[in-house]
Amino acid sequence: MHSSPRSLRTPDDDLPDLVRHELVSFFETRQAVQRATAGEFADATDSLIELVLSGGKRLRPTFAWWGWRAAGGDPTGAQAGAVIRAASALELIQGCALVHDDLMDDSPRRRGLPTVHVTFAERHRQAGWATGSNRFGMAAAVLLGDLSLAWADDMLRESGLSAAAATRAAEPWQAMRTEMLAGQYLDMLAQVRGDEDPETALRVNRLKSAAYTVERPLHLGAAIADAPAAVVAGLRGFGTAIGVAFQLRDDQLGVFGDPAVTGKPAGDDLREGKRTLLLSIGMRRAAERVNDSASAILRAAVGNAELDEDGVSAARAVLIDLGAVAEVEKEIDRLTEQALTELAATPIVSDAREGLTRLAASATRRDH
Amino acid sequence: MHSSPRSLRTPDDDLPDLVRHELVSFFETRQAVQRATAGEFADATDSLIELVLSGGKRLRPTFAWWGWRAAGGDPTGAQAGAVIRAASALELIQGCALVHDDLMDDSPRRRGLPTVHVTFAERHRQAGWATGSNRFGMAAAVLLGDLSLAWADDMLRESGLSAAAATRAAEPWQAMRTEMLAGQYLDMLAQVRGDEDPETALRVNRLKSAAYTVERPLHLGAAIADAPAAVVAGLRGFGTAIGVAFQLRDDQLGVFGDPAVTGKPAGDDLREGKRTLLLSIGMRRAAERVNDSASAILRAAVGNAELDEDGVSAARAVLIDLGAVAEVEKEIDRLTEQALTELAATPIVSDAREGLTRLAASATRRDH
Repeated sequence: MHSSPRSLRTPDDDLPDLVRHELVSFFETRQAVQRATAGEFADATDSLIELVLSGGKRLRPTFAWWGWRAAGGDPTGAQAGAVIRAASALELIQGCALVHDDLMDDSPRRRGLPTVHVTFAERHRQAGWATGSNRFGMAAAVLLGDLSLAWADDMLRESGLSAAAATRAAEPWQAMRTEMLAGQYLDMLAQVRGDEDPETALRVNRLKSAAYTVERPLHLGAAIADAPAAVVAGLRGFGTAIGVAFQLRDDQLGVFGDPAVTGKPAGDDLREGKRTLLLSIGMRRAAERVNDSASAILRAAVGNAELDEDGVSAARAVLIDLGAVAEVEKEIDRLTEQALTELAATPIVSDAREGLTRLAASATRRDH
Repeated sequence: MHSSPRSLRTPDDDLPDLVRHELVSFFETRQAVQRATAGEFADATDSLIELVLSGGKRLRPTFAWWGWRAAGGDPTGAQAGAVIRAASALELIQGCALVHDDLMDDSPRRRGLPTVHVTFAERHRQAGWATGSNRFGMAAAVLLGDLSLAWADDMLRESGLSAAAATRAAEPWQAMRTEMLAGQYLDMLAQVRGDEDPETALRVNRLKSAAYTVERPLHLGAAIADAPAAVVAGLRGFGTAIGVAFQLRDDQLGVFGDPAVTGKPAGDDLREGKRTLLLSIGMRRAAERVNDSASAILRAAVGNAELDEDGVSAARAVLIDLGAVAEVEKEIDRLTEQALTELAATPIVSDAREGLTRLAASATRRDH
């Protein structure tokens, strides 16, 4: 007697492990070549690899996988391995985004590790080399981020997708990288301009998070599976709403998250002066209050690199008191509901409907 | 009566213009999308585009083209357009290399224009935005370099190469990007370590210049043409020797070049403390002289960001007097001869032999 297919373990159940396995295998092949031609750069690359392998959620590959499954991809079929490899390449785009973003923001820690530019500046200091530790750290981060981006393309190219599938993958793949970079630029511009318009925060979210993290990975998977236009459109609609909600959750964690769980210092978004929807709403509501300290407390916190624990606590209390936190929670709920409604109206495989519904929940209700 | 095929203009005669044309067309398509989704980033991207379009020699695409021609590619055939597009994508890798290299070295000018990080820091200052002009310039340069690297892959993918040719192109393409980054890292490491070993300078040259600028572009073209192994090996051998010679010429120009022609400040390599073969030889010979000011003059110049015209002149005189300049010239001649001998022994199309011989001369005997 055969066991029913539903009782067999498929990649559906082991995505993070499978993604990790593909990344390890890719790194081993590449590092063998690098050690032979440029050993010092191979050593430096170990820091990038450590960062990429320390990622746990594998959100982008997971969305790509379910985009493919939604459009009929067979998890036990001959193409599944190639799809997992193509999806895993998204973690290398993310490797570039993290290394370069942390450099631009001068963030000290990421995923519980010192960031790349900080690691190399420290190595330089300890080696007692000539002046310019920070410049060395910056240069190493620039080059390792570039390597991650170049390797992302290599990994996609070597994934084993059919030529036709690779051609279909090109559109979401190229849009995703451009949108991620555009989102980072607009984010930084809003920061230096002191732009407090909530509409700007949402625009950045749509590019940097929704498109790059959810919508385009889903689109990528669906394109590989040769999904009909209505399925692609439905998945992208679902992805945009969940992606914005995902970022709103991230923004809450950026102020209220537990450093032991997030791997980032408490209140980091405040120190960096990140223009999130949460802060935009807080600033606007604070400005409407006459003779109140809320506005002063927020302004003293946002963009203040020296902000201490007490300052973080005070800003948190103000954001709660102003109802900004509750408003963002409401928006997360609204977007999640909108996404699930869109998903319900899209003709996809029922396993994938369950998978995507679970993913929607884990992206928007999480503590790290 | 028909004119003979030799009198018709083919892409052989117009490569820089054709490359420029392909780049302009790629940029127009991409910027139309970017202006609609992220206008501010499209504006920023104009700086990258200006830099890429201001390149004149188009050395890498030209080597790729002749690698293809050498292995029998037909310059008037149906594939020629796709090959030119694929070759033009090399200029976008170079766009990334220039923007990020100038950032890491904090170079003020490139191709007669202010560098990207300097341009954006200045814009920030003029806009009177919050503190952090240099950080803004750095971030813009990081993101625009990333964009150039991502677009390079997109342009190759969209070039119109057949699936089989694209698969063959993958090996040199991926090696080239990794070798360029490894070369930049080793170069920087030698700089901070104060490594004066001429062997280190040659190792950096082999990766950063020979492989990335000449050998791999030739390899790319030959691979697209499905060249036999002996042709690929011969072209790569030629390319490695010419590539190192090219960099040695660059090093001479970095100290002796005319700023009006090179587009870079006089003696820039001295100020940056670049560990070139020229300087390694100079340092070693200076150290062998007892009771001589040569060593002191060189040490006062190398890595001295404040070095003035007189200091540059003094260092130049010392490098000539020590015979370092003559030794590098001799090495350039030796490498060029070695390259041409290798080329003579490689079974390639005769037009291409002429083309590559001309290119070898222009890469190693030039004033900018």
